[in-house]
Amino acid sequence: MTGLHTLTIAEIGAKLRAGTLTAGAVVEAGIARHDSYGAALGAYKLWQPDAARATAGAADAVFAAGGDLGPLQGIPVSIKDLFAVDGLPTYSGTPRRLPPEFEREGPVVAAVRRQLAPIPGKTHTVEFAYGGLGVNNHWGTPRNPWDGADHRVSGGSSSGAGVSLIEGSAHLALGSDTAGSVRIPASMTGNVGLKITHGRWPLDGITPLGPSLDTPGVLARTVTDAALGFAALDPATDAEALMAEIGRAELAGLRMGICDDTFWQDCSPGVAEGVEAALDEAVAAGARLVPFELPEGEEVYRLFRRGGIVAAEFYAFLSARLPDWIATLDPVVTARFENAREMPAYEYVNRRHLIERCSASADERLEAVDVVVMPTVAITPPRLAEVSAIEGYKEANLMALRNTSIGNMLTLCALTIPVALDEAGMPVGLQLLARRGHEHRLLAIGRAFERKLGTARERLGVAPLCR
Amino acid sequence: MTGLHTLTIAEIGAKLRAGTLTAGAVVEAGIARHDSYGAALGAYKLWQPDAARATAGAADAVFAAGGDLGPLQGIPVSIKDLFAVDGLPTYSGTPRRLPPEFEREGPVVAAVRRQLAPIPGKTHTVEFAYGGLGVNNHWGTPRNPWDGADHRVSGGSSSGAGVSLIEGSAHLALGSDTAGSVRIPASMTGNVGLKITHGRWPLDGITPLGPSLDTPGVLARTVTDAALGFAALDPATDAEALMAEIGRAELAGLRMGICDDTFWQDCSPGVAEGVEAALDEAVAAGARLVPFELPEGEEVYRLFRRGGIVAAEFYAFLSARLPDWIATLDPVVTARFENAREMPAYEYVNRRHLIERCSASADERLEAVDVVVMPTVAITPPRLAEVSAIEGYKEANLMALRNTSIGNMLTLCALTIPVALDEAGMPVGLQLLARRGHEHRLLAIGRAFERKLGTARERLGVAPLCR
Repeated sequence: MTGLHTLTIAEIGAKLRAGTLTAGAVVEAGIARHDSYGAALGAYKLWQPDAARATAGAADAVFAAGGDLGPLQGIPVSIKDLFAVDGLPTYSGTPRRLPPEFEREGPVVAAVRRQLAPIPGKTHTVEFAYGGLGVNNHWGTPRNPWDGADHRVSGGSSSGAGVSLIEGSAHLALGSDTAGSVRIPASMTGNVGLKITHGRWPLDGITPLGPSLDTPGVLARTVTDAALGFAALDPATDAEALMAEIGRAELAGLRMGICDDTFWQDCSPGVAEGVEAALDEAVAAGARLVPFELPEGEEVYRLFRRGGIVAAEFYAFLSARLPDWIATLDPVVTARFENAREMPAYEYVNRRHLIERCSASADERLEAVDVVVMPTVAITPPRLAEVSAIEGYKEANLMALRNTSIGNMLTLCALTIPVALDEAGMPVGLQLLARRGHEHRLLAIGRAFERKLGTARERLGVAPLCR
Repeated sequence: MTGLHTLTIAEIGAKLRAGTLTAGAVVEAGIARHDSYGAALGAYKLWQPDAARATAGAADAVFAAGGDLGPLQGIPVSIKDLFAVDGLPTYSGTPRRLPPEFEREGPVVAAVRRQLAPIPGKTHTVEFAYGGLGVNNHWGTPRNPWDGADHRVSGGSSSGAGVSLIEGSAHLALGSDTAGSVRIPASMTGNVGLKITHGRWPLDGITPLGPSLDTPGVLARTVTDAALGFAALDPATDAEALMAEIGRAELAGLRMGICDDTFWQDCSPGVAEGVEAALDEAVAAGARLVPFELPEGEEVYRLFRRGGIVAAEFYAFLSARLPDWIATLDPVVTARFENAREMPAYEYVNRRHLIERCSASADERLEAVDVVVMPTVAITPPRLAEVSAIEGYKEANLMALRNTSIGNMLTLCALTIPVALDEAGMPVGLQLLARRGHEHRLLAIGRAFERKLGTARERLGVAPLCR
């Protein structure tokens, strides 16, 4: 059955439950698309079609017996290779398989598997998830499907996640986000990406980068899918209630805070313009743009430019638990924590205090609006050749992370939705930032945008490499 | 009215409510005792009898009008000069008054004042609370009332808190505990001291030392008083229910974990013996001694000997917020964080992970017993002359903190109760360690001990300097 990748998870789920479609057919359709596009795109570190088929068979058997294990039953979900999946190796983007303790599945992946979601494979990640562009010189860098001529990056660190969705082999992609690693690849590949509030989901079974900021997250082709995927994995969410809430959401009356600051500067041609056009349409539908100051965002971004806290936490992790992996680190990774080795403890402590203070203050400030809006990523996805070595990499990487990292450092939740193509023809995301713990509201607002603007497919069309 | 200091807070409260005693009389009795003993003991940095009288007058007026603002109404409470009290200066044991931000009252002191508890004064503390003996070379070191011949230390860092109770000018004393600073002075002065679970009460309005481990706490003459004081200040506790619970507590069937390890070694003559004798009495009353391994305690104690995490947090605080106070630090304080300036951030991060891991593991292990028992302080309170300079100070300080610091680093709650006099005639405390959040149970167990062993006054008699 063709065209399955144009349906939402809810639509497929309805067919599966009505018996008009099988999970087996869904998985086969995904495999067929992977066979067509996969070699050019390189989304997967590990591709396991037979395991996905087996799970699909089990899901169909459970459907046939009248069982329902959750919204993801029979829905192919790709997993970033930073997550442990029982029975599969974990490389976390490094040259060597990690020790067994990094292959013990955590609760997020367990929830995916408990619902009998077929897992077609583990997607590529930047080495130890430490980078925003998606570059991986050990295993190859997934190709962004939106440029038919050049190999452009797909964003990182969940570099294969967004590509797996565009390719059509997965309908939901698990990623993780420490400074933008869900939202950047989502934005750069024309997908939706949700970064949840830190601490909302446990981090067990995910190779750590900066545990104070690490968050699991989901990428999906639509807000509807992201919401259902979130609901399926979030223990505190009732899926039906959330889907009803996002079904009711409207743009009318929405207060969109907009900053006249750093986060709109130095954007690639067409990026700010694309986001502004989308906001204009929202305003036409009754939303209000509210001038908004977020000085805490500027403050934590300055801290981010000085190395933030992740470098120290990452080096602490490596030195204590994987010292043998240090020697083989890609220079694009090493360069980012070289100073961290020398950072004194008191400096780290004061940086954490700064983050806490700014988060508390930003949280209060955000009461005045429903969301803060800005481009998710300021720059067009660079050509791989420009950023595969450290010279071109460093500044592009920092620019890619600029607008997303503040979401992590201010302990917010955040959503990116695709709203335009820039002048290079590459996808542009609108980032919506909301208060800690406001995921439901955030998804509802995202859905209201999507209803007005259209889904990525409707608004952006089809990626050249997947036509 | 004499002898008021021999009554419990509950007994005084009953008289106040029955109209057979006035808060004014309670305060005057305390002032009279201070006039008799205060000059020799030096518990207070700031002594304000008239303010206490004024609050007592207000408390009596409210009683007369039938009002009841809580268990502490009309009960004199001394406050460690690490806590801000609106309208009073904060020195935190340093030579100079701290800036106004350190004089903004936090919720714990606000709760004391809201109940119209007269505050006779602010008690001495070690400089920035960083020390376990009580030595303060800027303002003088309070004298331990239990040695009539020599000036012995009263324990720190809440060095004046325990003395204020023995002197009789306060019936409850607010202290704080980062590595033992409530329990050590309580133990060394023959009082009860409660260290609550980290995070249970907010730290606002308390000059920070190591915020990851800092806890406010209370000292009192009896477990009954400590329980009522705790209940009066703990938003989640119903005072009547807690007092009923501690009234029912029994030793019969109690499982007391006892370790055959570091925490019983190198005790001063009579310390281990005094605690063992108390445990024997508990066993005779039906409690069981259960051999218990607490390897996490040994592990965090080794970390503590290497400087733990407090030094880095303290230096972070000083360098960011009070840099001008560094030059005047007493050498006994400076010596403890000199290495911390150079500690790298990754080392600090890994130390925090070690603490988290050990805490989680110890918490599980503690399910097997009701409490772990050991001497609160291994050593007899040293003579001031032996420890006022850095040479004698360092090792004595580490020994004083040895058995208490594990309670902080394993995120437990802990109670010390006076059980004996050692061979030097100085008080010996029995430390009861319990799981995170188990304050009610811990106080109930402490009260069961007290009922069997007698209160400090009944068991230890009267301190020589207060006869």
